[in-house]
Amino acid sequence: MLESAPYYFRNPAGPGPMLERIRIVLIGTSHPGNIGGVARAMKNMGLRDLALVTPRCEARSSEAISRASGADELVAAARIHETLDAAVSDATLVVGASARSRTLPWPMITPRQLGETLAAELAPDDARLALVFGREDTGLTNAELQRCHRHVHIPTAADFSSLNLAAAVQVLAYECRQAWLATQESTQEPPGDDSPFGTAWDNPLASHADLERFFEHLERSLIAIDFHDPDNPRQLMARLRRLYLRARPDQMEINILRGILSAVEKRARSGRG
Amino acid sequence: MLESAPYYFRNPAGPGPMLERIRIVLIGTSHPGNIGGVARAMKNMGLRDLALVTPRCEARSSEAISRASGADELVAAARIHETLDAAVSDATLVVGASARSRTLPWPMITPRQLGETLAAELAPDDARLALVFGREDTGLTNAELQRCHRHVHIPTAADFSSLNLAAAVQVLAYECRQAWLATQESTQEPPGDDSPFGTAWDNPLASHADLERFFEHLERSLIAIDFHDPDNPRQLMARLRRLYLRARPDQMEINILRGILSAVEKRARSGRG
Repeated sequence: MLESAPYYFRNPAGPGPMLERIRIVLIGTSHPGNIGGVARAMKNMGLRDLALVTPRCEARSSEAISRASGADELVAAARIHETLDAAVSDATLVVGASARSRTLPWPMITPRQLGETLAAELAPDDARLALVFGREDTGLTNAELQRCHRHVHIPTAADFSSLNLAAAVQVLAYECRQAWLATQESTQEPPGDDSPFGTAWDNPLASHADLERFFEHLERSLIAIDFHDPDNPRQLMARLRRLYLRARPDQMEINILRGILSAVEKRARSGRG
Repeated sequence: MLESAPYYFRNPAGPGPMLERIRIVLIGTSHPGNIGGVARAMKNMGLRDLALVTPRCEARSSEAISRASGADELVAAARIHETLDAAVSDATLVVGASARSRTLPWPMITPRQLGETLAAELAPDDARLALVFGREDTGLTNAELQRCHRHVHIPTAADFSSLNLAAAVQVLAYECRQAWLATQESTQEPPGDDSPFGTAWDNPLASHADLERFFEHLERSLIAIDFHDPDNPRQLMARLRRLYLRARPDQMEINILRGILSAVEKRARSGRG
């Protein structure tokens, strides 16, 4: 069974064992542009293993290379097979993309479900996933679908269900990458920052004390320009607090706002003088 | 505010109010095939509202129609605008697709996070989302990115990060559809309130046009009090944009802020007088 092992492991510098063990299989593709588009979508998401079964076009034509837009090494490295069986012989899970419900119901999953189970599926070292996509016009045959463990259906509008081939690969490859990213996050240090700022923010957030000094300054300034009457405050300061607290200002932003307030106060004084 | 309502509601037979209120905005697209591919990806996922800002190609060429592959009515119905502002003026949430980290960090979300918050975001009847995509070669400019409340980054392989335009739209449209499907599956209870706003907020959010008028007013006022020198702007307006866009001001908050600016301008004039 390991006789073709060098084939499986031909991407040792790939983005990680999990994504390396996912193969995209295209059957009977008619348009070389779609092969290029698939290669680009794969490489964007960190997949590299492309297999073509009886393509109905010149798979490595200039149109394929052009649409690959820098992912042409995946097109060049793609294996071409005579049969689906040959293309997926080492796969421990074969999932066929299916737009239609078939006469014989088959275990059906969504792309999201595929992603959610992927880490467990690919946990064993010898586990391999093949995602199989059919012809642009007629999809997979019943015989091909019946070689799959599961079918995956990408939810679409009922009246317009036929996805472009590269778009379908894009969606499933995206879910695969999300699944891989989730394993990276759970095994590393906690990112520590589920705020909308992330770790790359350019300035430290203002402290509570910074903010309270700003609100005092803001209120003084609004009184100075006769906008705010502390004897009839209504909800003015509460609304301004809510607005600025929601934004979570950083220290530089507070410095800018206080600089503006100082300029306003200076004007207010000169106006009275 | 409802003067252009027929425009908003021009898809009454669409897949449901939530997906109807999502607009895809393409700026400066060079390849008509990409416009067709975007239209197809949109229609597959149940989106219908396509806007083009200064396309650099014949948007309705035969190549666009061919790649649309049955979604050509979206291409035909696409609005063409001279400016981003015109294309998103009614949007209450503007999200720009960004591949790169910028010199000035901006609130950044993933496609999954966009999907997870979408039902709450679009719960109010007047809420509208615009997803903005830049040029194939150079993406969105800093000025365009600074008109967005948030940036969305599609996770990609580090060494191959540039997605095809239609592929990028496909991923975000897919997450939008997943979010809509989740609302259909849940027991039709109100989406609750896991966005900062949800259904319980006391005022409608300000539209893009409201916000741009506020930023113009803010800049005028800062010039009037000699705080801002447009000949030496540094990053002042960009930082203030980032702060206020992050807070997602509602209409009353914008009214308050503009009232303050008017009071400041009055003082500045009397100070000079």
